[in-house]
Amino acid sequence: MKSKQTSAESRLERGRRALKAIDGEAGEKVIEALKDIAPDFATYLLEFPFGDIYSRPELSLRDREIATIAALAAMGNATPQLKVHIEAGLNVGLTKTEIAEVLMQMSVYAGFPAALNGLSAAKEVFALRDSQGLSGPN
Amino acid sequence: MKSKQTSAESRLERGRRALKAIDGEAGEKVIEALKDIAPDFATYLLEFPFGDIYSRPELSLRDREIATIAALAAMGNATPQLKVHIEAGLNVGLTKTEIAEVLMQMSVYAGFPAALNGLSAAKEVFALRDSQGLSGPN
Amino acid sequence: MKSKQTSAESRLERGRRALKAIDGEAGEKVIEALKDIAPDFATYLLEFPFGDIYSRPELSLRDREIATIAALAAMGNATPQLKVHIEAGLNVGLTKTEIAEVLMQMSVYAGFPAALNGLSAAKEVFALRDSQGLSGPN
Amino acid sequence: MKSKQTSAESRLERGRRALKAIDGEAGEKVIEALKDIAPDFATYLLEFPFGDIYSRPELSLRDREIATIAALAAMGNATPQLKVHIEAGLNVGLTKTEIAEVLMQMSVYAGFPAALNGLSAAKEVFALRDSQGLSGPN
Amino acid sequence: MKSKQTSAESRLERGRRALKAIDGEAGEKVIEALKDIAPDFATYLLEFPFGDIYSRPELSLRDREIATIAALAAMGNATPQLKVHIEAGLNVGLTKTEIAEVLMQMSVYAGFPAALNGLSAAKEVFALRDSQGLSGPN
Amino acid sequence: MKSKQTSAESRLERGRRALKAIDGEAGEKVIEALKDIAPDFATYLLEFPFGDIYSRPELSLRDREIATIAALAAMGNATPQLKVHIEAGLNVGLTKTEIAEVLMQMSVYAGFPAALNGLSAAKEVFALRDSQGLSGPN
Repeated sequence: MKSKQTSAESRLERGRRALKAIDGEAGEKVIEALKDIAPDFATYLLEFPFGDIYSRPELSLRDREIATIAALAAMGNATPQLKVHIEAGLNVGLTKTEIAEVLMQMSVYAGFPAALNGLSAAKEVFALRDSQGLSGPN
Repeated sequence: MKSKQTSAESRLERGRRALKAIDGEAGEKVIEALKDIAPDFATYLLEFPFGDIYSRPELSLRDREIATIAALAAMGNATPQLKVHIEAGLNVGLTKTEIAEVLMQMSVYAGFPAALNGLSAAKEVFALRDSQGLSGPN
Repeated sequence: MKSKQTSAESRLERGRRALKAIDGEAGEKVIEALKDIAPDFATYLLEFPFGDIYSRPELSLRDREIATIAALAAMGNATPQLKVHIEAGLNVGLTKTEIAEVLMQMSVYAGFPAALNGLSAAKEVFALRDSQGLSGPN
Repeated sequence: MKSKQTSAESRLERGRRALKAIDGEAGEKVIEALKDIAPDFATYLLEFPFGDIYSRPELSLRDREIATIAALAAMGNATPQLKVHIEAGLNVGLTKTEIAEVLMQMSVYAGFPAALNGLSAAKEVFALRDSQGLSGPN
Repeated sequence: MKSKQTSAESRLERGRRALKAIDGEAGEKVIEALKDIAPDFATYLLEFPFGDIYSRPELSLRDREIATIAALAAMGNATPQLKVHIEAGLNVGLTKTEIAEVLMQMSVYAGFPAALNGLSAAKEVFALRDSQGLSGPN
Repeated sequence: MKSKQTSAESRLERGRRALKAIDGEAGEKVIEALKDIAPDFATYLLEFPFGDIYSRPELSLRDREIATIAALAAMGNATPQLKVHIEAGLNVGLTKTEIAEVLMQMSVYAGFPAALNGLSAAKEVFALRDSQGLSGPN
């Protein structure tokens, strides 16, 4: 029988594991950056998106990253998060070609600038990974 | 050796086949509605999104519909097209559960209203399919 | 020498004339609808967009309506205003063909759904005008 | 000492109380509508926005509703939620005049159509409240 | 009895006073930057948002800045203006905690990226203020 | 009688000519940047927006650039493309004054931040052109 505190920790811990598996180091930097300005928001970010949503077994992480990359590229106003999730896509099994393909498709739904800016973000992420010898599958 | 006309038709024809396979009857209504106001745009719609993009083998149609449903729900300003693609998702192999899961995930990236309005659109599409005895997999 | 009241009226009056010339009856309905909930906002709407911006001679009303129709179709979240300005476009000299052309072009910058929903709004406005015997030039 | 289940309920219960106090009957309808398509999402909606965010004492509910009404009117793509929160604003102490004032101000940041459509939503909510004898303060 | 010129000046002057009180030095830089490219727009900016809207007594400046910060963070495409208004919020009585709270709340309506990017903008503004010894209340 | 290959080239070639005439060197850089990450997308970009849409005689290039500048400034999330099209506007006959006027007008439909950020982008483009001795008409 777990105490209230323990069960809250357990939701947080599940989120922490999911964040690490999906976003890797980039995700940890986001959490770190919230420490002084909004520490509770770091907790919510671990608990709800990662502890609740990404931890649901109804959709694979690969499918979830297709959805996230598509949405962020289409909205076009969250470049830092788009980059984190392009990297997350590589972490959970998307190839570079598949990511580029999702971004190209956004030209149909959000216009060519959204696709071009998404591809430009991907280019930066891929280059950085290459320079770190972390280059994902093509 | 094909004539210019023939090769133009072939791109158009590929789009027509893709539209039919993906969007079904709903897609044909979109084309029909453009006839009097912008007939050339019906052609472009068949040629570029369907003849070019959706016909590329680099990503499965199931993956493409995850991306499209996510993007349209996140943007939140294209309900008719979101409904067409929720139906398209069922046509190309997504289950109702997977579609609802993609829409729920949009709460993280575009807010709860985007997710709620997406789920409300899905509810309408699913109910209509049920009433037509076309109910997709759960 | 004019009193403060008179000069305020004069800015307001210029806006009223511009609204009538551009938006016609549709514009007057917008003003009317604000009477009980936000009467001062009706005044601002006449004064700033119409008394200030549309009254500037640096750009023709035809050019201004191209810009407005493009922007509202691209944003995709203001259908009532898009319809008013499709009608306004006809009032200041755009042809139906030119308006459809602007809307088609939005597929490039805001995606096919934005263009399709814009064309659908235009279709309604054109049909209503036809039914009133007010059909603009083609 | 509470069980995991109990502590999960307690976060959910706090959300339920907050939803009832803020959104009233309109909020309960939103939860009800999710029952068949995405029941877990109803839980998340109670837990995160209402159990976590709105329950934080750092900002009054009146201040929170100013923020929500402003954001939803500015985004312009979530009319059902805007109406719920215009009513919520009245429930937590905003006057009709203050709500109209927030909506007018959105003309500066999101354009006149956003303000006009927000005021139109407010007009509907206020009229419905009046017809139910629930008219809030002016 | 005032001349037309005088009354026009008076609206402009009211705007200038409001801009100074609300946006401080940051606002004056915005006006300055418009001098060569669009000097009339500097006048409109002083007259309509500041001379008309912010000068209305129906809502306090503190309430108005909650609305503006929420809207700009939710839209997510106007970072320079968001920063100006985070500073404006401090100028008119919001605490850093309250501003962070409004930004966190935007995760519910516009998604976690909008909240994260808003908090990141706030962090920059707060740090700059601290470095200038102008640090607002917590 | 043309081969398939030839007719495909001809659509691409028309796009290439249009891109050069409209976007000039800036357009060629966009194509160049796509070479390694998404070469097919460079082809689509030449073919659909430029080979199809901009090559249609129903609207002048000057009118088309008014529409594009308005849309991109209103959406506010595609600054690189907005700059390319401000330059394109000068290339096809818009004066600096007319471009500034279109951007100012966006304050009415998308808010003052959209107009301010658009004017800021124009200021950069105009300054760069001046420094290259390419300054367009005023």
